[in-house]
Amino acid sequence: MDNSLLPFFKPQGVVVVGASTSPEKLGYGVARNLVQGGYAGAIHFVSQKAGTLFGRPLYVELGQVPDPVDLAILIVPPQAMPAAIEACGQRGIGTAIVMSSGFREVGAEGAELEERCKEIARARGVRLLGPNCIGILDTHLPLDTTFLQPPMPTQGGIGFISHSGAFAAAIIDWARAQGFGFSQIVSLGNQTDVNETDVLPVLAADEHTRVIVLYMESISDGRRFLQVASEVTRRKPVIALKVGRFEAGQKAAASHTGALAGSEAAFDAAFAKAGVLRAETAEQMFDWARALENCPLPRASLRLRAAAHPSAQGGIAILTNAGGPGVIAADALETNGLRLSQLAESTRTALSAALPPSASVHNPVDMLASASPSQYAACLKILLQDENVDGALVILPPPPMFKTEEVAEALTPLIHASDKPVVIALMGSTLVEAAAQVFQRAGVPAYPFPERAASALGALAKRAEYLNGVQRLQTLEDTTNSKVRRLWTPSDLDELFAAYGIPSAPVKLARDADEAASIAEGLGFPVVMKIASPDILHKSDVGGVTLNLQDVPQVQVAYAQMVERIQTARPEARIEGVHLQRQIPQGQEVIVGMVRDPQFGPLMMVGSGGVEVEGLRDVAFALAPLSQAEAREMLRQTWAGRKLQGFRNLPPADEDAVIDVLVKLSLLALDNEHIEEIEINPLRVLSNAAIAVDVRVKFN
Amino acid sequence: MDNSLLPFFKPQGVVVVGASTSPEKLGYGVARNLVQGGYAGAIHFVSQKAGTLFGRPLYVELGQVPDPVDLAILIVPPQAMPAAIEACGQRGIGTAIVMSSGFREVGAEGAELEERCKEIARARGVRLLGPNCIGILDTHLPLDTTFLQPPMPTQGGIGFISHSGAFAAAIIDWARAQGFGFSQIVSLGNQTDVNETDVLPVLAADEHTRVIVLYMESISDGRRFLQVASEVTRRKPVIALKVGRFEAGQKAAASHTGALAGSEAAFDAAFAKAGVLRAETAEQMFDWARALENCPLPRASLRLRAAAHPSAQGGIAILTNAGGPGVIAADALETNGLRLSQLAESTRTALSAALPPSASVHNPVDMLASASPSQYAACLKILLQDENVDGALVILPPPPMFKTEEVAEALTPLIHASDKPVVIALMGSTLVEAAAQVFQRAGVPAYPFPERAASALGALAKRAEYLNGVQRLQTLEDTTNSKVRRLWTPSDLDELFAAYGIPSAPVKLARDADEAASIAEGLGFPVVMKIASPDILHKSDVGGVTLNLQDVPQVQVAYAQMVERIQTARPEARIEGVHLQRQIPQGQEVIVGMVRDPQFGPLMMVGSGGVEVEGLRDVAFALAPLSQAEAREMLRQTWAGRKLQGFRNLPPADEDAVIDVLVKLSLLALDNEHIEEIEINPLRVLSNAAIAVDVRVKFN
Repeated sequence: MDNSLLPFFKPQGVVVVGASTSPEKLGYGVARNLVQGGYAGAIHFVSQKAGTLFGRPLYVELGQVPDPVDLAILIVPPQAMPAAIEACGQRGIGTAIVMSSGFREVGAEGAELEERCKEIARARGVRLLGPNCIGILDTHLPLDTTFLQPPMPTQGGIGFISHSGAFAAAIIDWARAQGFGFSQIVSLGNQTDVNETDVLPVLAADEHTRVIVLYMESISDGRRFLQVASEVTRRKPVIALKVGRFEAGQKAAASHTGALAGSEAAFDAAFAKAGVLRAETAEQMFDWARALENCPLPRASLRLRAAAHPSAQGGIAILTNAGGPGVIAADALETNGLRLSQLAESTRTALSAALPPSASVHNPVDMLASASPSQYAACLKILLQDENVDGALVILPPPPMFKTEEVAEALTPLIHASDKPVVIALMGSTLVEAAAQVFQRAGVPAYPFPERAASALGALAKRAEYLNGVQRLQTLEDTTNSKVRRLWTPSDLDELFAAYGIPSAPVKLARDADEAASIAEGLGFPVVMKIASPDILHKSDVGGVTLNLQDVPQVQVAYAQMVERIQTARPEARIEGVHLQRQIPQGQEVIVGMVRDPQFGPLMMVGSGGVEVEGLRDVAFALAPLSQAEAREMLRQTWAGRKLQGFRNLPPADEDAVIDVLVKLSLLALDNEHIEEIEINPLRVLSNAAIAVDVRVKFN
Repeated sequence: MDNSLLPFFKPQGVVVVGASTSPEKLGYGVARNLVQGGYAGAIHFVSQKAGTLFGRPLYVELGQVPDPVDLAILIVPPQAMPAAIEACGQRGIGTAIVMSSGFREVGAEGAELEERCKEIARARGVRLLGPNCIGILDTHLPLDTTFLQPPMPTQGGIGFISHSGAFAAAIIDWARAQGFGFSQIVSLGNQTDVNETDVLPVLAADEHTRVIVLYMESISDGRRFLQVASEVTRRKPVIALKVGRFEAGQKAAASHTGALAGSEAAFDAAFAKAGVLRAETAEQMFDWARALENCPLPRASLRLRAAAHPSAQGGIAILTNAGGPGVIAADALETNGLRLSQLAESTRTALSAALPPSASVHNPVDMLASASPSQYAACLKILLQDENVDGALVILPPPPMFKTEEVAEALTPLIHASDKPVVIALMGSTLVEAAAQVFQRAGVPAYPFPERAASALGALAKRAEYLNGVQRLQTLEDTTNSKVRRLWTPSDLDELFAAYGIPSAPVKLARDADEAASIAEGLGFPVVMKIASPDILHKSDVGGVTLNLQDVPQVQVAYAQMVERIQTARPEARIEGVHLQRQIPQGQEVIVGMVRDPQFGPLMMVGSGGVEVEGLRDVAFALAPLSQAEAREMLRQTWAGRKLQGFRNLPPADEDAVIDVLVKLSLLALDNEHIEEIEINPLRVLSNAAIAVDVRVKFN
């Protein structure tokens, strides 16, 4: 964490520049929240008119404000902002929250003003948050620099970074009714200086923050975000809601890779590499956050993808008092890539003893509508003791015979005592209100429907899986710049590939029979010969392709015959000679590509190639640098990659060779920033090699 | 609608058998709800002990109950149920709600008891609802046969059919807090007699029901459901939440089609054909229902799929007072397949006049945080007048300067006056509570997040699209049984295909050169010859394949040469002769398949074929019978189908011929119930024909 940011989060004294005695003004709301929010440091006000506010003097000049003061909240008209920042610098205040709007978000003139503010701030050594933001909220310190209607959100373990102040404000109000709190909330606004990547380490270091949620509309510096987020996620879970897909116009692409890599592919790949969980909706982000804040993590083997190990019996147990919601939950777990536990024989016996004979003691465990609080507790205890149970989803619609809150009271001690995650589907509203409060107080995440509870368990499983596999990730720091780094040109491509150890089959032009023979010898036999003519599109139709030439004499004869055939068939065609390429045996084929993302750097692709690559969309993306494990994971995500292991009559091909090409191509891409796109289509995969047959490179 | 069901929904008099004076008993709750719920017909109670309850006599025998009585609610122990049903028959009561549990859901013994009840009911002419259900709720009649805690749900236009009583009960409680009501709720329980298909027409005929939601775990009779639901959806929207995916074990399949057609593919296809909207989650089902209950439908051209017509400018307008939520909404509309409107020049001019200069008058329209209730109203009015706007999503977080409910009040008259749908993202909780009530009273659907509002608009668009295309659907009634119906056997396959007009290239066995010549003449030239030997796997490796035989002499020579080659190369191999097939030119290829679903009948498939069909999963399903339009839609859903129109260097192929094969194969499948699976892989698609090259049929 950057120490110059410290006063934003732990100020010794705060001054509100633009404080107001009119309750409808923002400058009043901010003053009120600072005072009433319980902030323990010094609070000062600057206003155009002298007087008092909340028992404190209103200074007319910032210079009059006494020590201590290290954070300014600036609520002045945009035109007055440069002077206000200047004044901060003169007063020795190193951090300022620029709350006013009217800058970049309103057009070119505002952008210019914002740029001026930034320059002054930099010159004066003032760090800026905003403009166009609602500032910082810390429920534990406490500190509330916003103008939002009190009360402050309740204390909690969720740290919330938001590009949008309005979104943050709406979430704060919504969270009240949902019954969850926050540790810190940081509204970033236009991020003229401080951005989400700067704030991530602050929340990571905050003792009260257990999970970080991030609402983002863009990214300031993709590579730095990757690096910082990768470090933060090793310590605390980070969930991101990235919006703004619709705004990203598709740029013209020179390759299939470029066409397939929509703007979101790079974000997906960046979040995956950094271990950031990407939520699809706002509601989902907070559903996940509540589980990650409160629950222990399940074993990493929980998700279906791990079902490659059929011996693993782990999974989630569903405990319900009604069949229907149990079925909904089972479906939803599957949708979230989770397994249902196979309950142990002893578990089923113990459940049978605790339940009426017509209850179901298989998973989902259906206790029937008569289930009492003590039966709920007894059954959950039995389930959590089962080695095959990695977590539980408890379904709690209002029991016909008992109060829901009695069930909640019976369950919470068990949930606290367990090292396995338990989430609740608390179905209903008025009849479950008291139970909801019990769970809230106890820090047990409860959701109104089984689907949302299952989704939360899915996030826990993803988090566990990430922590388990974190050493499999290749980070930029691990890669040393290659010795082969130099400014390659289009004519050096074969050499470039050779330098990085990527096997390829170069295509060479021969202008006469002797040159053809000598080139063929250099390439190694057999070779393929194709007529080189800009006027002939379908070469094989006119005898312009000869396969399987085995030695020098065959090449010489073939050259003469081919030229003669073409001259006869198409007398008007210009003939430049022939193209020669070593003939690669048949095998499986994949496409391997790279497109340089402006934010995140080289984005690697692998999948089904050929001409239909864009139609099939059987491709996977990941950011360079790739580790072998990451490259292998990419192959797993595509059919083209999976079938390298063989499929029915299709013999296996050299998967490791493809992985090797992916890893090396990712290094090549990192080293050579003047290369914009690379596409190998196809990479021919044999039983013991993978060879780039056709390579296209776009230099920038 | 079956008239024998009428007393369930409009009874003249109701008797509770098993009424109880103990408030903790179900028999008390049911009696209480009947009386306090305001049911206007006669209410009678039967109990083991005489006495009174809610001012009415407790009879000890059903025979003592006076007229009118045509509906019985049976709350007696399972063992006593057969006698109770018998008594209903004797008393002339034609409908009975069997509320008790302890039947099929608890095992074999219970199932036997349930079967006995069913037989008695049938013999005595008593229709049964349940067992194991909570009965019927009608908020308008009113009638409440449940034991649920009062008050009854508020009146509304959503009719709700549920297989699960517990789910229905939880939803009723939840709906209270969400602020929406119901017209009727029917809990079906074990459906020993009355099932979801029986009840659909009842709700379709109910004047208060505007939309039907259906929670289902299984289906009783798939074909009948299809037929009935198809009729109902032409009048009223139906939304289904079908659960139980995880329970459906994958059966062993004889074909790729069978392997790809998981249990859910048939349900998806059935819902699509019947025009039933399939929701993914419970919350989504009711989000959609609230929009369909209250909003006019947008133009059918709204969804992105219609973007094939780039001239269409229609779409959704987003109106917001903050950028962030506007971006979320835009993304979510796209996720739901909806377009953003291109606002007309005149609209932007009008918006500019109504808003401050720094507001954004492009879609999403951002009025800025200062937006007043009258600005909200003025802008919505302007947007709804734009011809390019088919509907609006209004984002309403608490405005910093105004009360949210004032905005709500300003908007509702406009929304009522418009024939375009408007939904609200009302973000927050305590600060928007009053506004939520305004929208509830006005029947304007409001959702806590833009994503859910966008999903609701998506449902409206799907509904409009369905109604617009309803004539494109082929229904079973439209198809006359083919004249070619007969019991075909495996040896008749060529004839069968010929009878249905499906072009195929039969494979014939010739045992000597003369037979080969005569068969080849019959097939038409050119032909392909392949060695027929059970001992030779890779025929071409040993010279066992000869292509392009052009006439009788060539066939005779080829036969002799092939047999000699094989005898030399593989002297041990048994040679049965040669297989001859007309040689089909190269072209595009698709797979076309049929697997008979036990519930819904022939499920048709088309997509990318070859050996990799199961890996690529580029396939689409639909239920037979197929119209041309339905078959074309299947092709649109797959890459293999889309590329029939040509792709880059790939020339177009005869899409209509594929559609013709799909339509005819669906008729063949309907006519021939003894055929279990058919797979054409490949169907070779030329420029002016499609020919089945390899056909496999599984008879049952």
